[in-house]
Amino acid sequence: MTIAEFHPPHRLLLGPGPSPVEDRVMRALAAPTLGHLDPVFLACMTDVQHLLRYVFETQNRVTFPVSGTGSAGMEAALANLLEPDEEVIIGIHGFFGERMYEMATRLGARPIRVEAEWGRPLDEQAMKAALDRSRARVVCVVHAETSTGVLQPIEPIARWVAEREGILIVDAVTSLGGHPVGVDRHGIGVCYSGSQKALSCPPGLAPITFSESALEKVRRRKTPVPNWYLDVSLIERYWGSERCYHHTAPINMNYALREALRIVAEEGLEARWRRHERNARALWAGLEAMGLELLVPREHRLWTLTTIRVPEGVEDGRVRARLLEEFNIEIGGGLGPLRGKIWRVGLMGAGSTRGNVLLFLSALESVLRREGVRCGSGVSAAVEAYGG
Amino acid sequence: MTIAEFHPPHRLLLGPGPSPVEDRVMRALAAPTLGHLDPVFLACMTDVQHLLRYVFETQNRVTFPVSGTGSAGMEAALANLLEPDEEVIIGIHGFFGERMYEMATRLGARPIRVEAEWGRPLDEQAMKAALDRSRARVVCVVHAETSTGVLQPIEPIARWVAEREGILIVDAVTSLGGHPVGVDRHGIGVCYSGSQKALSCPPGLAPITFSESALEKVRRRKTPVPNWYLDVSLIERYWGSERCYHHTAPINMNYALREALRIVAEEGLEARWRRHERNARALWAGLEAMGLELLVPREHRLWTLTTIRVPEGVEDGRVRARLLEEFNIEIGGGLGPLRGKIWRVGLMGAGSTRGNVLLFLSALESVLRREGVRCGSGVSAAVEAYGG
Repeated sequence: MTIAEFHPPHRLLLGPGPSPVEDRVMRALAAPTLGHLDPVFLACMTDVQHLLRYVFETQNRVTFPVSGTGSAGMEAALANLLEPDEEVIIGIHGFFGERMYEMATRLGARPIRVEAEWGRPLDEQAMKAALDRSRARVVCVVHAETSTGVLQPIEPIARWVAEREGILIVDAVTSLGGHPVGVDRHGIGVCYSGSQKALSCPPGLAPITFSESALEKVRRRKTPVPNWYLDVSLIERYWGSERCYHHTAPINMNYALREALRIVAEEGLEARWRRHERNARALWAGLEAMGLELLVPREHRLWTLTTIRVPEGVEDGRVRARLLEEFNIEIGGGLGPLRGKIWRVGLMGAGSTRGNVLLFLSALESVLRREGVRCGSGVSAAVEAYGG
Repeated sequence: MTIAEFHPPHRLLLGPGPSPVEDRVMRALAAPTLGHLDPVFLACMTDVQHLLRYVFETQNRVTFPVSGTGSAGMEAALANLLEPDEEVIIGIHGFFGERMYEMATRLGARPIRVEAEWGRPLDEQAMKAALDRSRARVVCVVHAETSTGVLQPIEPIARWVAEREGILIVDAVTSLGGHPVGVDRHGIGVCYSGSQKALSCPPGLAPITFSESALEKVRRRKTPVPNWYLDVSLIERYWGSERCYHHTAPINMNYALREALRIVAEEGLEARWRRHERNARALWAGLEAMGLELLVPREHRLWTLTTIRVPEGVEDGRVRARLLEEFNIEIGGGLGPLRGKIWRVGLMGAGSTRGNVLLFLSALESVLRREGVRCGSGVSAAVEAYGG
């Protein structure tokens, strides 16, 4: 068997994730591997936890990266918090809400759907009404729907859940580091994310944080967590002061996350959120000037991910393939019912720059024109949005 | 918050894993991140699968790396194959057999224990008798017990399981790439491993392979797999020809595994096994010449991991700390009932070299003498074992 050396091209990652990774993070990733109980690695873990508390805006003791990708974070939240036959409210306004529903069902819980059209946020009153009608203590909501580009306001839902002494689980996979998440401010019970979105680390870790009341619910379970690998009461003994061996952490991925989080801390969360907002607004201005239609109304849009309706008569896959082949730019297609109908353009972490906005607008214009779309130019509008 | 740049030292990893990683693998790890649906990454996945089939010695179509560490591989095997209330035979001769039992219990199965003293292999007749007495279709066994250093012969157990049309699950975390595993030859149903042992890749992936009859059992389940992240019927659609999105694979870790497996293929499995055997035998000769006692009888020893009884009156932790501080050498301590009683010395993958054997023997001698142990020199005996 002869399999050649692998030389992946330098793509400009402007899809729904992974996002571009800075060289500093790559160098950290390739630093010498340590044992998972080496005192130097234990110190690295402590640093990662400090930095994660900062980006989650929390004091939660139990804050660590799950040894898996974003969906492992989702599974860790649900598998620990839900018991068989337990009612749970799940807000579904896209692909990842559906995934939560699917996981809750497999865990033997009784999920109650509260739905919104894909591309719109959940109706907060509908969430409240479902909560009032049920015996659910746990409410799940996707903060940043990666399938639609919608930002779900957390605050009102969090308030009602808190009034009923419930536990709110928030999926912040595509928001953490790019939008305020405010775990403690909103009293979120469990919040998880992915390393490869606005944190600009390669994929492979899922930061997660558990509040004390969420942990209290885990401790009072009548049945064991059916998932050994993701059981927080075991994992917290490794990531906590006991440093009790659970499983071998992905050592080098933790180095990379540490460095990616240091970059977040150097920039400062506030400044990072503003940067994501500024670049997203310029992108929207450019796209609208081109005559393209965005899926999500302005007030509900993510700064990290913009969704564009594929113009009538244009073949989705051809445009994405040309962007990849001619410009080395990756963007995403639609999922589920939006397949073939939207493009997903991420400006996440290191990818959220003025240069990338202008390059992407120019590249898209170049491809669309040759696909026969009579679109205007977006660059001037974007430049103007930046204030010239 | 000021957290400094991270500069982990170059340790010589001679513990139970992670093992030393070659520079080629580190360079692959730090290659530019691609999207998980990028055609170039899809080609990388195909290569990884080809190479994994080679090291597992299998033609199994469903062969891929689980996006987690070794224990996620164990959980993937059990969560897919076991249903609630199903009897399952679990051979327990160490910490990782106990872990299988714990996982099976959490999954609601009814595990039946077949035990052996830690440091000895399972009695094959006892396994057969348990199988005959039960209604179990699934039998679980740890090929290489990382907690004790015992190699469990697979062949007789595999034969009885096959006669009863059962499914054999084999934990090859510490053997794959260092010992013959022979998935097809033995008719193993599910076999999993870890990237960070004899494959010499950083931790973060768990290679796994499913036979067609194992998959058939999964397809006939009456209940859904309670673990969405590890559900093989979903994952095989991403790793199979459909390339249907499931979760974002740890992209860079897959690059590293590809390169680590290329190194295995270049050396050749046979040559790699012989290297592991040769270096282990030299280590044993040296340790015995020093007057140290090994936990496992010669005929049951792993080549990848040697377990030494801590001499009477010697403080386990002090010796390991001195090896780490004075020589930058990591070895492991004992787990569970062997805590404080044994040292675990790994010669895995790139770590299995003549130089490491001689260095370790010298370093251990140097530390033990200063701890007041009257031990002989092991270097000459090791040199002699190599044939001078």
